[in-house]
Order: sequence, then C-alpha cells, then structure tokens
Amino acid sequence: MQYLSHERLISLNITTPEILNALEKLLRDQAAGKAHAAPKTMIVPGDGRYMMATLSTSDEPPFMATKTVLLNQENSAKGGDAINASITLTHSQSGETLAVMDGNWITGVRTAAASVLAARYLAKKDAAVVAFIGCGVQAHSHLNMLADLYPLTTVHALGKGAKNRDVLCDAARAMGFEAVASENAQQAVEGADIVVSSIPLTSQAAPFIDASWLKPGAFIASTDSCLPWMNESLGIFDR
Amino acid sequence: MQYLSHERLISLNITTPEILNALEKLLRDQAAGKAHAAPKTMIVPGDGRYMMATLSTSDEPPFMATKTVLLNQENSAKGGDAINASITLTHSQSGETLAVMDGNWITGVRTAAASVLAARYLAKKDAAVVAFIGCGVQAHSHLNMLADLYPLTTVHALGKGAKNRDVLCDAARAMGFEAVASENAQQAVEGADIVVSSIPLTSQAAPFIDASWLKPGAFIASTDSCLPWMNESLGIFDR
Repeated sequence: MQYLSHERLISLNITTPEILNALEKLLRDQAAGKAHAAPKTMIVPGDGRYMMATLSTSDEPPFMATKTVLLNQENSAKGGDAINASITLTHSQSGETLAVMDGNWITGVRTAAASVLAARYLAKKDAAVVAFIGCGVQAHSHLNMLADLYPLTTVHALGKGAKNRDVLCDAARAMGFEAVASENAQQAVEGADIVVSSIPLTSQAAPFIDASWLKPGAFIASTDSCLPWMNESLGIFDR
Repeated sequence: MQYLSHERLISLNITTPEILNALEKLLRDQAAGKAHAAPKTMIVPGDGRYMMATLSTSDEPPFMATKTVLLNQENSAKGGDAINASITLTHSQSGETLAVMDGNWITGVRTAAASVLAARYLAKKDAAVVAFIGCGVQAHSHLNMLADLYPLTTVHALGKGAKNRDVLCDAARAMGFEAVASENAQQAVEGADIVVSSIPLTSQAAPFIDASWLKPGAFIASTDSCLPWMNESLGIFDR
C-alpha cells in the first residue's frame, strides 16, 4: 500500500488535458454501466463540522475510491485548512487496499475538471474574460485549468472577504492576466465569457446574481448548487 | 500516518472485555450526541459484487472512521476472502489522516461485540450451550467472544455447506467444547442458551427457524436481519 501525499501528487505534473480525458472516460463509463458512484453519506454533528464519505468504483482501471471529508471552520482560524480529505483506493475486484491519497488536491482538481469538461463542449473557444463569484479553493483550481485551455486576458473577482479576493487577483496577475476586484455581482458578471460561482454551501446570503446580466453565449459553472443565482433569472440558459 | 495490518491488530491482543467496554462507551456517547454514525452508502453493480462505505465519528477519542467494504464471491473461488475491508481513521477535529487499518478483523469483532454486549445485559450468566445457524466469519468471532464470557460446554452448528460447519466444529473442539453438527434447525436450536444466526444476506432461503423451539430464557443474536427466523414466531421474545 502506498501513501500519496499532496506534494507527491503535485510532483506527478498531471496535465489539465490528462485530467479532463480521464474524467470524460469515467463519465462515459458511468453511462455505460462500467463505473458507478454512490450517494454521499454525511454526518452533521451540529457544532459547525460537516463530515462526508463518498464511494465510487470503476471496472477499468479496477479502482474503488472512498473519500473522507471533514469540514471544520475552526481549523482555518488556527491557520490550517477548513476542508481536509483523504482517499482510500481499493482494487475493485480483489478488495486489496492499494493506496491512500491526500484528498485536498483532488477536491479542487476534480470539481474544476467537471466544470472545464462541460466548458470544452459548451463555452466559446475564444473565451477571454472569466468572472469568479467566490474566491476560495475552487476559484483557484478553476482559474488554473481554464488558463490551460482558453486565451484568457482578464479576471473579475468578487468575494465576501477582501483577503481571498486579493489573493486570487494576485494569482491571476502572476499568470499574466489583468485582474479586477469587482464592486458588485453585476460588474463582475457583465462582459464575462465564463462565470464560475463557488460561494460556501453554508452561505445564508439571498441570491444576488441576475443571469440576465450575462452576455449572450456566456458559460457558467456553479460549484455551489447555484445558491447565489436568482432562481427566476435562470430560464435564460440554453441548458 | 500508520498502517495497521491484520497481523498487527491481532498482535495487540485486545481483550474481549476491552472491546465490549469500548463499544458500550461509544453507544452511550451516541445516545448523548457525542458520537455519530451515518447511514451506509453502497454500490451494487449487478455482477454479484457489493460495495459499501460507512462513516462514523466520536468526540472522545477524536476519531472519524470511514470503512470501505467489497464483497466479491469470485475471490473466495480463487482462495481469497469474499469480503475485504479497510478503515481510514481521521482526526475528527483537525481532519488529519491518522491511520489505515485492515478492516477484516474489525468486521468480525465489532459485529460479535454488539451481540455479546447485548448478551451481557440479556443472556443467562451460566449459558453453556450455544447454537450457530450459519458457520462463517461471524460464527467464529461470536464463538471466540462468547467463550471469553460464558461457561460454554457445547456448540451446535448448522450451515448450508459442510465445509464451513466442520471448520467451526473443529474450532470449537480445539477450544475444549463438545461440537455437534446439527441435522436441522430444530435440533440446533433446542436446548441452546444462546443462538447466533448469521446466514448470508444474499440467501434466498425461506425462513426456517421457529422461535417456539427455543428454551425459556434463551438469548438470540442475529447478524442477518433475522432472515432465517419465521416472522410469525418472533412474538415469543421479551424484547
């Protein structure tokens, strides 16, 4: 059994196209009954923590993956990560435990890959402006993957806290893009070719993005169950 | 992070009373809201395999446990175990991955401990005859634990296959008990102080144990959702 740490996973230099192709294969296998995912199971103890286990399996490669996730905001107050995850990889025929992997790298990458895989089919190839509503882990992983596939020039960032927003803008500038801290959702969304919304699922905010502000042909990815989007404005989407 | 193999877990020589006390503490903590278990999540691909993940957490000790289970009967045809499991142990506050443990030892021990803990409150202290309906992993783990707590003299064994039944009888004799391969369920159950039923959950057999065959004061433990017990006879139990 091997342990794949965060550093080890990073050092493998897995490329965005490799990740997208792997995810697309799994989704096609799932449609063909050769890969399966179970409903997540969770514990909400009532003290602010959120615990989750997910289970999925594939025939080829013969891997069964169990992911354990703990969300504890108290850890970020202490300078750690609020969300920590690990993945146990089991041979899906023999049951042998093959590896334990740090789950934080995959939490970001897998979610972004699902969005970017959809973008590969739905977004305009010349997308240049990307807007982020929510500036946390998901914004960074989406930015990294989108930058690998699209001729981005400009990033709009809107977040509840100035710190996360500024960190995202700095990251975008370091990648050679213009970065704008938007004043409000309308300013962020207007003119964007791609909008990524990833506010915390624990947010109690009323929906504040009107989809009618989007320009025609814009693509949106929501990792937050569309929480910030005004429900009555969503009819504007083609799909 | 450490890996606790089957051999390592055995070498710890954890005693039956230690296991029962730990389980009792967890059940009391659960009642007090200090320990939680989530509903299991599962995948049934339709090819005979059964996959499952379970999630539980405790405040003290601060452990979150995710168990992955694969049942694949094809593995026993190849001389391996049909059921293989692993457990990932995570710190339930920090989210740090603490250990990965072989899950097969605990699958047997934990289930038997739940039965034997109930027996500690419900069974007669002088129980001498124990009957097993189903002679697999659970029969062995129950026999081991019951032998630690009760003045057993005699084991009755009834199983679908002669091989598992004979192995259980041999194990009972090696522990110094008289072992009888019962001809049928009535013979197995009659005169028993404790009855353990653990037929496979995949069994298609019609219920074949009539609870009225039990002697007064007998204790039964069922790890098989009472599948082999005739429903209409179950009213005989005090609880």
